[in-house]
Amino acid sequence: MLEIGQTYNFYGKVLNLNDSTYDHYPINVFSEDSENLIVRLKKEEEVSVNKIYYFETVAIAFKDKIHLEAKTHTILGEMDIPETKKEKLLKFFYHYAPIDTEAIRTDIEGIIKTIENPVLKKMTETIYDRFREDFYLYPAATKFHHAYISGLAYHTHSMLMLAKGFFKVYSFLNEDLVNAGIILHDICKIFEFDSYEGSEYTIKGKLIGHITMGANLIDAVATELGFQDTEEAMLLEHIIISHHYYGNFGSPRKPAIAEALIIHFIDNIDSKTTVLGEELNLVETGHLTSSIGVLERERYYKHKLTND
Amino acid sequence: MLEIGQTYNFYGKVLNLNDSTYDHYPINVFSEDSENLIVRLKKEEEVSVNKIYYFETVAIAFKDKIHLEAKTHTILGEMDIPETKKEKLLKFFYHYAPIDTEAIRTDIEGIIKTIENPVLKKMTETIYDRFREDFYLYPAATKFHHAYISGLAYHTHSMLMLAKGFFKVYSFLNEDLVNAGIILHDICKIFEFDSYEGSEYTIKGKLIGHITMGANLIDAVATELGFQDTEEAMLLEHIIISHHYYGNFGSPRKPAIAEALIIHFIDNIDSKTTVLGEELNLVETGHLTSSIGVLERERYYKHKLTND
Amino acid sequence: MLEIGQTYNFYGKVLNLNDSTYDHYPINVFSEDSENLIVRLKKEEEVSVNKIYYFETVAIAFKDKIHLEAKTHTILGEMDIPETKKEKLLKFFYHYAPIDTEAIRTDIEGIIKTIENPVLKKMTETIYDRFREDFYLYPAATKFHHAYISGLAYHTHSMLMLAKGFFKVYSFLNEDLVNAGIILHDICKIFEFDSYEGSEYTIKGKLIGHITMGANLIDAVATELGFQDTEEAMLLEHIIISHHYYGNFGSPRKPAIAEALIIHFIDNIDSKTTVLGEELNLVETGHLTSSIGVLERERYYKHKLTND
Amino acid sequence: MLEIGQTYNFYGKVLNLNDSTYDHYPINVFSEDSENLIVRLKKEEEVSVNKIYYFETVAIAFKDKIHLEAKTHTILGEMDIPETKKEKLLKFFYHYAPIDTEAIRTDIEGIIKTIENPVLKKMTETIYDRFREDFYLYPAATKFHHAYISGLAYHTHSMLMLAKGFFKVYSFLNEDLVNAGIILHDICKIFEFDSYEGSEYTIKGKLIGHITMGANLIDAVATELGFQDTEEAMLLEHIIISHHYYGNFGSPRKPAIAEALIIHFIDNIDSKTTVLGEELNLVETGHLTSSIGVLERERYYKHKLTND
Amino acid sequence: MLEIGQTYNFYGKVLNLNDSTYDHYPINVFSEDSENLIVRLKKEEEVSVNKIYYFETVAIAFKDKIHLEAKTHTILGEMDIPETKKEKLLKFFYHYAPIDTEAIRTDIEGIIKTIENPVLKKMTETIYDRFREDFYLYPAATKFHHAYISGLAYHTHSMLMLAKGFFKVYSFLNEDLVNAGIILHDICKIFEFDSYEGSEYTIKGKLIGHITMGANLIDAVATELGFQDTEEAMLLEHIIISHHYYGNFGSPRKPAIAEALIIHFIDNIDSKTTVLGEELNLVETGHLTSSIGVLERERYYKHKLTND
Amino acid sequence: MLEIGQTYNFYGKVLNLNDSTYDHYPINVFSEDSENLIVRLKKEEEVSVNKIYYFETVAIAFKDKIHLEAKTHTILGEMDIPETKKEKLLKFFYHYAPIDTEAIRTDIEGIIKTIENPVLKKMTETIYDRFREDFYLYPAATKFHHAYISGLAYHTHSMLMLAKGFFKVYSFLNEDLVNAGIILHDICKIFEFDSYEGSEYTIKGKLIGHITMGANLIDAVATELGFQDTEEAMLLEHIIISHHYYGNFGSPRKPAIAEALIIHFIDNIDSKTTVLGEELNLVETGHLTSSIGVLERERYYKHKLTND
Repeated sequence: MLEIGQTYNFYGKVLNLNDSTYDHYPINVFSEDSENLIVRLKKEEEVSVNKIYYFETVAIAFKDKIHLEAKTHTILGEMDIPETKKEKLLKFFYHYAPIDTEAIRTDIEGIIKTIENPVLKKMTETIYDRFREDFYLYPAATKFHHAYISGLAYHTHSMLMLAKGFFKVYSFLNEDLVNAGIILHDICKIFEFDSYEGSEYTIKGKLIGHITMGANLIDAVATELGFQDTEEAMLLEHIIISHHYYGNFGSPRKPAIAEALIIHFIDNIDSKTTVLGEELNLVETGHLTSSIGVLERERYYKHKLTND
Repeated sequence: MLEIGQTYNFYGKVLNLNDSTYDHYPINVFSEDSENLIVRLKKEEEVSVNKIYYFETVAIAFKDKIHLEAKTHTILGEMDIPETKKEKLLKFFYHYAPIDTEAIRTDIEGIIKTIENPVLKKMTETIYDRFREDFYLYPAATKFHHAYISGLAYHTHSMLMLAKGFFKVYSFLNEDLVNAGIILHDICKIFEFDSYEGSEYTIKGKLIGHITMGANLIDAVATELGFQDTEEAMLLEHIIISHHYYGNFGSPRKPAIAEALIIHFIDNIDSKTTVLGEELNLVETGHLTSSIGVLERERYYKHKLTND
Repeated sequence: MLEIGQTYNFYGKVLNLNDSTYDHYPINVFSEDSENLIVRLKKEEEVSVNKIYYFETVAIAFKDKIHLEAKTHTILGEMDIPETKKEKLLKFFYHYAPIDTEAIRTDIEGIIKTIENPVLKKMTETIYDRFREDFYLYPAATKFHHAYISGLAYHTHSMLMLAKGFFKVYSFLNEDLVNAGIILHDICKIFEFDSYEGSEYTIKGKLIGHITMGANLIDAVATELGFQDTEEAMLLEHIIISHHYYGNFGSPRKPAIAEALIIHFIDNIDSKTTVLGEELNLVETGHLTSSIGVLERERYYKHKLTND
Repeated sequence: MLEIGQTYNFYGKVLNLNDSTYDHYPINVFSEDSENLIVRLKKEEEVSVNKIYYFETVAIAFKDKIHLEAKTHTILGEMDIPETKKEKLLKFFYHYAPIDTEAIRTDIEGIIKTIENPVLKKMTETIYDRFREDFYLYPAATKFHHAYISGLAYHTHSMLMLAKGFFKVYSFLNEDLVNAGIILHDICKIFEFDSYEGSEYTIKGKLIGHITMGANLIDAVATELGFQDTEEAMLLEHIIISHHYYGNFGSPRKPAIAEALIIHFIDNIDSKTTVLGEELNLVETGHLTSSIGVLERERYYKHKLTND
Repeated sequence: MLEIGQTYNFYGKVLNLNDSTYDHYPINVFSEDSENLIVRLKKEEEVSVNKIYYFETVAIAFKDKIHLEAKTHTILGEMDIPETKKEKLLKFFYHYAPIDTEAIRTDIEGIIKTIENPVLKKMTETIYDRFREDFYLYPAATKFHHAYISGLAYHTHSMLMLAKGFFKVYSFLNEDLVNAGIILHDICKIFEFDSYEGSEYTIKGKLIGHITMGANLIDAVATELGFQDTEEAMLLEHIIISHHYYGNFGSPRKPAIAEALIIHFIDNIDSKTTVLGEELNLVETGHLTSSIGVLERERYYKHKLTND
Repeated sequence: MLEIGQTYNFYGKVLNLNDSTYDHYPINVFSEDSENLIVRLKKEEEVSVNKIYYFETVAIAFKDKIHLEAKTHTILGEMDIPETKKEKLLKFFYHYAPIDTEAIRTDIEGIIKTIENPVLKKMTETIYDRFREDFYLYPAATKFHHAYISGLAYHTHSMLMLAKGFFKVYSFLNEDLVNAGIILHDICKIFEFDSYEGSEYTIKGKLIGHITMGANLIDAVATELGFQDTEEAMLLEHIIISHHYYGNFGSPRKPAIAEALIIHFIDNIDSKTTVLGEELNLVETGHLTSSIGVLERERYYKHKLTND
């Protein structure tokens, strides 16, 4: 119970902003202690819904209730606290990929090291290094699949793992090209959304999209590194623009090299199978899942041989 | 050069039958020595085009030419000769999968041994044992993909290899079910074609098809083994009828369990990627392939990083 | 009005089960006298929603109300009462096809007698005799068309009647094959649903479906009767698997014989026209029906020449 | 053998026109005696390919051959000869529906007599009487189905026969409306083609089509008879414009009354099943037909139970 | 405030009819002064919802409220008042096209005057003169686009203006035919709806539709004027039936002359772009519109260069 | 007639290269005097098929014929001759747009001058100036529409002319954006083909395409000019990637601003209507054109009111 006059400092996620005719306006905040609080901010101050802030407040009486008047509020990204504390807060307040980020980072960076073709290696490293931080935070989509923090890295990692099986069966594939292509195929998702938490499409995301932004990025980095006329840059750009295949999926070109086709297959499979696994997790053996959007709205059966 | 009166005994594939008003009629035969010969058979005797026979003949003069009058002819399957000799003849006369049959047989039988679920193991073994010989001879299709002798086993083996990669990423999959499903999914192709060499669809193949014949087979074997009411038999039958997915691909049901979905994905990928690999093999680096039927008639580019 | 302490015995349909912390739990029952009653059952006893039971009860006070405590309850199927009484109860509690079951039974059995081809006759009789009882009880679907008790027999009968007209115009049709095909085409609907009243799809219904179950049944019965290699068994199986035509309708094969095509036409027409007749029945002359699901969501006009 | 100077008078169908620098030009004519003749016409005279003429000629020498110089030529339609002679000539020179025209005329006129609704009766009689002659001569299409002389009447008759079966099963249908609708549904085909023999689409046939011409005809005749505001005229017009159903089949409206839906079904069935019967006629039992255009290019199997 | 016993005369739109057991029944009326009033009518008198009437009433007490008892009520169309007064009332009570009707009338009649081809001129004038009044009142649709009073004339006018640009670029177009075609293409919309205010489809609108009614109209007027066999009448009829292009848009024929194709293009563009303009008007710069039905449910961005 | 020993200098287009075992190899050349000549080149020299060269040759005897041995050969682009001479040669040897290039250049440059928005103006001018020469030479496609030299400029010009009409009707359009968008929408077609004469798709054209190359170009030039974060650059890039609308037409995004939608409409119309005009030009009044690929393979009627 809050006591009037007491000071309360805490991290909280802003849920809602409310109008007010007073010189403070009330906002709903969900705190790190799982409480729903009403915090009052000065009229001229702004916060964003769905973001985490550190609030320093004091409890006041307001009509019959106790509200918290904010003295300061600082967005999480500007707090000078250890990374582990930040990650803990993010995991608490947001939906997170069910993975060990450090482990997949090790895997992904290990695979980048295996790339032998110098142009592909340089292109991949340059782009990866430039956007690494966001790469491990952004989701892969706002809904449909991998729609949670770190979803992009999780999805990319699964694709790299699946690709290994393909190299054994189809020896004509160029491994460097497949690996570089997978790492870069969705990287411009980080520009398609306005933030990694509670993501919404930006206007640029809607008007241009991660596929064309990805092509632009390859083109710009190739020019920057002097690779603008290389076969490698052309193939990487082709992989990026064709990974949704074509037609009503937003790719302006169909795959026209074997590696682009394989990346399309793996991308498609992982985006569907991961969702299916999550849905099966939610029901009991012997029952049907809900209708699954990415699987043509079908319901799947969790059969009695299912591994637990 | 043939000499009149001499005896010539040889294996040969029948290319063509011709009418004749004489009491012997001429047929065109391609011999194991790569010669095009004309053999004359008695009116009342029959041979089938595209099959291999052992002919015992004697050379005779016919108009200005030398023909071979057949004394006996025996179809290859009824010759009492070593298997290795038979296989050598088949490889000479027909288009063959580019594989080492013995090696894939070892792999496939090894995987059957790993199946732990007793119902799946018994069902798979029973069916595999019953049709093993044809399983290693039949093609997977009359055109489109794996349309050569042993194509069915080659395709099945590649699918089993690809599946291993999926087990690592999607731990909720039941490996036994995926492996049993892959081994049995196309097995009734052996009833869809009239023979393994130069295959044509039979009437039953056209009217019923390998998918429904496969369902019937599972149903009959399950009843025979006392498994007719098991979850396992139902799931295997479901995998078989849903592996073409649905709609204009001949499946009466969409996949509704995770393992059926994965088998569909792998089947689809292997049927396309194997053809793509074969087509890339036919062109030089830097060029486009011909239009590829199974890949929406697209032409693929053999890029300059292609492995040789 | 119920009197406390009195005995009340009656047939009733279970509408709802409710939780309770007492050692009896309350269920809602709709009685043969159209009353909504609350019956209390012992914790360890089970009844199924939507089924009819014979209850022997005594009225008790419960809080401010009068409940009926069940002494016994027996499911209708196990009551030793005349068939006519059973049918009367079913007609009262469930939605029923608007037909005289005895009359259509006479028609259908008359048509079976006309089949001259011995294989078709034996196959049809064997399957019909084995499932006759359910055949006259099950619906033809859980929604869409003929979704009421006896719907399957009603639909089958209408198709047989329509077929007569076709024999006159298209003399090349084999009547035996059309009649046998119609009688058997949907028979495995009885396995697709969990019961004939208030039917739901079973898991096997969803994963395998009446089309493939029908194929399995033909295959098994043909084997049992020694007809496994007959043209007749193959044609019947073909008719069953092709009667939804193809594509997004669940048939793995298109019709490839004239009789299969005709059965597809008649099946399609009856499933739509019967619904249309029912919908026209619900509106007044000069008005439009509601949007009709099976007719592409169109609204039909009940014109002023409509027969009443 | 022709003799120079002799007179030859005969009926013949013009096969071909040839250029010439002489003042007579040669045409190829197939005669009623099945001979291929060369007839020479004066430059200023015209004949049409594919039409039948009565030629009065005299044999002349032309280079090394004998040609026939035409003195007169009269198109069959203008010859004053008995109808039976005309019909015999038409049957000889053209492809004809396999029917007894007199018998179906009796049937059709009998059905018109049964129409009780006075508006429908008057509309049907008026239009039928006005176009009766052409109705029994025109084909139902230039290709696809019933593409031969009298095809239109043959198709209309089969539809009327099939409809009888529907009246028994679906008692809510208005028989008068169905019968009138069937008789009139395709009647404007006679304006879509340039002639009944060797028909080609006219420009008006291509730009307006029999469906809209049919609507115009109903509209004009209704006005002429004072029925312009009747329910009957509206329903007949609706039946005509909706009988191809919709979409890529050229109907501007979907059926919205039961009778229009039934006529659509019957029209569709007869146009396909008649072709199927004709194709089965061309192959032997146990074989597949050619690919059939109106049946999605499928090949059908003439099974061993087929009636002969 | 109403005073009991006082007389109140006013124009009002009927919103609702209510049942009553008294000999007067109450209706809700929205008056020209924007008041919601309850008017009581005698049992035997009828008014239509959504229509404007002139009411002469007297205020009476009814239970605790004041109602207005109607002495007379006259529908707007029968009031003898100036056109400008009528138009003012219509604009007040209904949703109206954002145009100056007089200005577009001048433009349209000016364009009719420019038609030089005598047949096209006479046909266009005859039809336009006959339906001019309704032409300027009816909407172009009940929803989707131009769904307000005068929508038909507004849409027709925009199309005529757009066509001018096409004549400059594509000199092979016949201007008379394009202009006549545009003016007449949708004219039968006035028969498709039951009134110009608050329009609903009539049964004839649903069963026949403005496209076929338009064809009938051209056909009838051509016959009336002696133009029934002219190229011009055929082309006009073709334009009308093909202006929705084909397929699922209700045209029985695709455009087959250049002018029909151009009219289809312009019709399609104006029906979509006008809606888009209206939707952009509703949002602020920098934001997305709502999902727009006629534009495949897409949301459009009102960018920062948008003209105000 | 060629005389042995004489010198012959001329422009010619290379038709064909032939193998030879001699140290000169023969090529077929079509000369500016419309002669088909055989020119012999030294083994180590290369020419390209379909290109124009200036040849200096001497006539020699070769077997029974006279060949021309080339002393020098210079590709047209490297000849120091007046532009008018070059253009005359191009027009002679290739298929050319039916336009006055100078006139449309004046129009286009006039429109660029009218652009007021400084970012759009600078972007448009920069790109136009950089590629102006090729812009007036390249076709708009290799087949389908405007598939001739200068086709790109011709198509762009027609679109600009059509746009003027739209500005009058839809006042909410930003003219600068529409004009800039039209000028730039197809400009990367010059990179999609290997040359402007006898164009073939390059590998980069196939793998990346003019739409994505256009996006890259906008992105690179915006960065170069410091406009990378402007609304204008984003909108231009959006227009380019959405001008094929979406789906099976190669656009990765649908139009989402009004100007992009209008450019899509105009582009679509001009690409079809120009072809239609060309096809109508090829037939006589009263006849149908051939089937037209870009118009769904329809045949169009050249009616009797067609302007000549």
